[in-house]
Amino acid sequence: MNEQAGRRARGGGGAARRAERSAVHFETARFIERNIPNLEILNEEALEIIERNAETVLAEIGVNFVENPGALELWRAAGADVQGERVRIPRGLARQLCATAPGRIVQHARNPERTVEIGGRSLVLAPVYGPPFVRDAAGGRRYATMADFNNFVKLGYMSKWLHHSGGTVCEPTDVPVNKRHLDMLFAHMTLSDKPYMGSVTEPSRAADSVEMSKILFGAEFVDQNTVMTSLININSPMTFDGIMMGALEVYAKANQACIISPFIVGGAMAPVSVAGTLTQVLAEVLAGVAYSQLVRKGAPVIFGAFVTSIDMNSGAPTFGTPEASHITYGAGQLARRLGLPYRSAGAFCGSKLPDAQAAYESANSLNMGLLSGVNFMLHACGWLEGGLVSSYEKFVMDADQLGILHRLAAGVRMDEEAQAMDAIREVGPSGHYLGCEHTQANFKDAFWRTDLLDYKPFETWEEEGARDTVALASERVKKLLADYQKPAIDPAVEEALAAYVAQKKAGMADAFL
Amino acid sequence: MNEQAGRRARGGGGAARRAERSAVHFETARFIERNIPNLEILNEEALEIIERNAETVLAEIGVNFVENPGALELWRAAGADVQGERVRIPRGLARQLCATAPGRIVQHARNPERTVEIGGRSLVLAPVYGPPFVRDAAGGRRYATMADFNNFVKLGYMSKWLHHSGGTVCEPTDVPVNKRHLDMLFAHMTLSDKPYMGSVTEPSRAADSVEMSKILFGAEFVDQNTVMTSLININSPMTFDGIMMGALEVYAKANQACIISPFIVGGAMAPVSVAGTLTQVLAEVLAGVAYSQLVRKGAPVIFGAFVTSIDMNSGAPTFGTPEASHITYGAGQLARRLGLPYRSAGAFCGSKLPDAQAAYESANSLNMGLLSGVNFMLHACGWLEGGLVSSYEKFVMDADQLGILHRLAAGVRMDEEAQAMDAIREVGPSGHYLGCEHTQANFKDAFWRTDLLDYKPFETWEEEGARDTVALASERVKKLLADYQKPAIDPAVEEALAAYVAQKKAGMADAFL
Repeated sequence: MNEQAGRRARGGGGAARRAERSAVHFETARFIERNIPNLEILNEEALEIIERNAETVLAEIGVNFVENPGALELWRAAGADVQGERVRIPRGLARQLCATAPGRIVQHARNPERTVEIGGRSLVLAPVYGPPFVRDAAGGRRYATMADFNNFVKLGYMSKWLHHSGGTVCEPTDVPVNKRHLDMLFAHMTLSDKPYMGSVTEPSRAADSVEMSKILFGAEFVDQNTVMTSLININSPMTFDGIMMGALEVYAKANQACIISPFIVGGAMAPVSVAGTLTQVLAEVLAGVAYSQLVRKGAPVIFGAFVTSIDMNSGAPTFGTPEASHITYGAGQLARRLGLPYRSAGAFCGSKLPDAQAAYESANSLNMGLLSGVNFMLHACGWLEGGLVSSYEKFVMDADQLGILHRLAAGVRMDEEAQAMDAIREVGPSGHYLGCEHTQANFKDAFWRTDLLDYKPFETWEEEGARDTVALASERVKKLLADYQKPAIDPAVEEALAAYVAQKKAGMADAFL
Repeated sequence: MNEQAGRRARGGGGAARRAERSAVHFETARFIERNIPNLEILNEEALEIIERNAETVLAEIGVNFVENPGALELWRAAGADVQGERVRIPRGLARQLCATAPGRIVQHARNPERTVEIGGRSLVLAPVYGPPFVRDAAGGRRYATMADFNNFVKLGYMSKWLHHSGGTVCEPTDVPVNKRHLDMLFAHMTLSDKPYMGSVTEPSRAADSVEMSKILFGAEFVDQNTVMTSLININSPMTFDGIMMGALEVYAKANQACIISPFIVGGAMAPVSVAGTLTQVLAEVLAGVAYSQLVRKGAPVIFGAFVTSIDMNSGAPTFGTPEASHITYGAGQLARRLGLPYRSAGAFCGSKLPDAQAAYESANSLNMGLLSGVNFMLHACGWLEGGLVSSYEKFVMDADQLGILHRLAAGVRMDEEAQAMDAIREVGPSGHYLGCEHTQANFKDAFWRTDLLDYKPFETWEEEGARDTVALASERVKKLLADYQKPAIDPAVEEALAAYVAQKKAGMADAFL
């Protein structure tokens, strides 16, 4: 199931080969291909009601494309009823437009052994995205910096069960907001060899992402292949703003993948009911994906659903809740019926600390993510405090749990060796399996193994300091960062990337808002 | 879904009615009836292979019934090949004998509103069973006492999402081992009005359990109804010891339910493979359930599977692992094909503390328990350190999570109100749902609510002491125990129970081994 990280010498220069030879490789698991079924919680009748209602929403209520006259023009030409910024889409049109979006997306990594496929029965795991703060046990909670960002990219690179380097693993608040994306992309491209995400905060930053990718992969390769999967949020309810759509347009035209994702706090941005929220999510995604296909037929897109519910006492978002699970399961079914790859779930939690609350909430979400058929799971590790904080300890704690998802998804082996009838015969009633031949031959790969959790006898554990999970995780973070070694990269490519960043920055005044 | 605890005046005396009127009632949810599907991870071919192999195990290898000549006689009469203590069961015989066991068991509580049904799509949740130690944040880890036992029964009684009072919620090590069961039963019968389990450590203690139940419910009622569900472990591999079987015989003859449960640490008591372990589990349960039907046709029994795997480094059992999940899912399918109620899962963890490790492991197990179709979940809250410790804090932490299982299992409402089309129309693009009519009408019941977890804004949380989940749980334990009030009971019944206990104790010397 796993593979050793491999060789790739782009450009093939001698320096590249030398860098390659001296680099240490860290094992990364192949993306998950499920061998177990999804959990289908909605029956055919329920799915049809939601689909019919979503078409009603599009046809009768419509969606807003804000500050985007070009989009309105495309919609009008496609046959929608456009009044001001309101776009009403006749029944069936959006679904028909969605049909040209591919069902499975190959996202290339610069190390081809880390290329992932998003769609079908696959599951690709990517780290937390977006927090302005970081937290660790030693330093507490503080604004994130570029140094933190680099650390999280390194931790992601070294995490065996993480297939993807992600995007804004934290917001480097010490870098001007209009320059940040350049440093972030440079970090993903040089400190890791896993696939990554592009910038979406401005169309020009999306264009920078494409340009830098062309330096890394070669222009022709990027024209013909997908090398980024970027996160395009919809302003729920039913609003597509010009900036996000501008980024989507850049990526769609460049054949780069977008996750089109309603961002929903149930009760605030959607109805307080699961069925109502699913209806709105489907309407929004249908409109967004259809628009991507108007921009470029065949553009790779992913059906996204970021869903949390609101705590009606405090107004705070809540995570790991059963209502969010229902929506995630249901949205997966809707995505599959549309034939689109599906993004949802993550190691979500509302807790301020990487404590039991955080772990309950995250485990609920991770299990639900696997079983709901998610193909791309952003926030699969490191998320804390409702997404306000990237936690160092939680990053490695969650990343360890992701190994469990791999094993669960692999299903049950049924070959003769696995049936173990010889072992049962050999041991017999009242016997013991530890010493038997079958156990000796199979024990090394028989069980998932943690890299973090404690199974020691109580007395040993107590003598060693009675450490909790956070203490064990702090130690692991320290060790991983100390052991980190950069993956091989052609020095000429790295220089060209650095030059692009420097040149772009030189042309801009600092902006911090 | 929930119901207020209700009135029941057994015997109908005035004292009983007075006790009733002055008692405070605590809300308990009705047992779960799933409205979502189970996850079926094995296909038909895999199930048939396992079933065929299990019959081969029974016919060719056989099982041992140890120190139990009566059992050997019953088996011989039923057509098995008995050599010494080894019983070889011809293909098909065990399955045929199992056919007389009921598919669904009504276990009566003395408060009839708390009566549960075990089987079909139901899920009944019961607390941790068996630990010799307890732990709380203030007092650390220590041997459990009868005072602890009483506290856990009280906490169980007050837990809204717990349907069952359980059995040995901890081992009261300050009471002689031959007298403990009397005090434990007395506690369940008088401090709670939820259903409970009987003693299995000696046939005579099972008989005491039946006698005390007759005092509580009336002799005739107990003869005709099931009022206990007790835990009969099989000594895997394939060994049925005389003491456990002796208890089973008492219960089966008295029409009381038994969970017949292989106790398996994978790699030690079963092969290191999932398919091999499932084969052995099925063979063992087939033999045990068939035996129960030889003792009394129609005796209520439950297909049990307690499964953990071994950490091949330390030899310690591990919890919340993917292999245990595979086995739990698979055993659920096998139980349903046998038409038997199914017991498995629980809030399992290996961690020494109620920390993130404990919560990850427990949440993995709880989710898997719901989706694998478990009908009776022992250890659903309070389990710590591989079952060595009953944790006060973890009891209320897990119990809170059980609320999530209730909501998940309820599935998705699809009526017109839930479809919320009027709300989507009212709010429209760019609007906000908080104030809309549908939200106002539905928000109170829209989302599951925690009684424990923290969703406050960071600043508020910090001002209030930056408490972690354990600190919040300690506070909740304290409050619940302070608020506890005994459920109403006819004083004459309580006196009769106390007299039975006193009389039995007086006739025994203390034994501590």
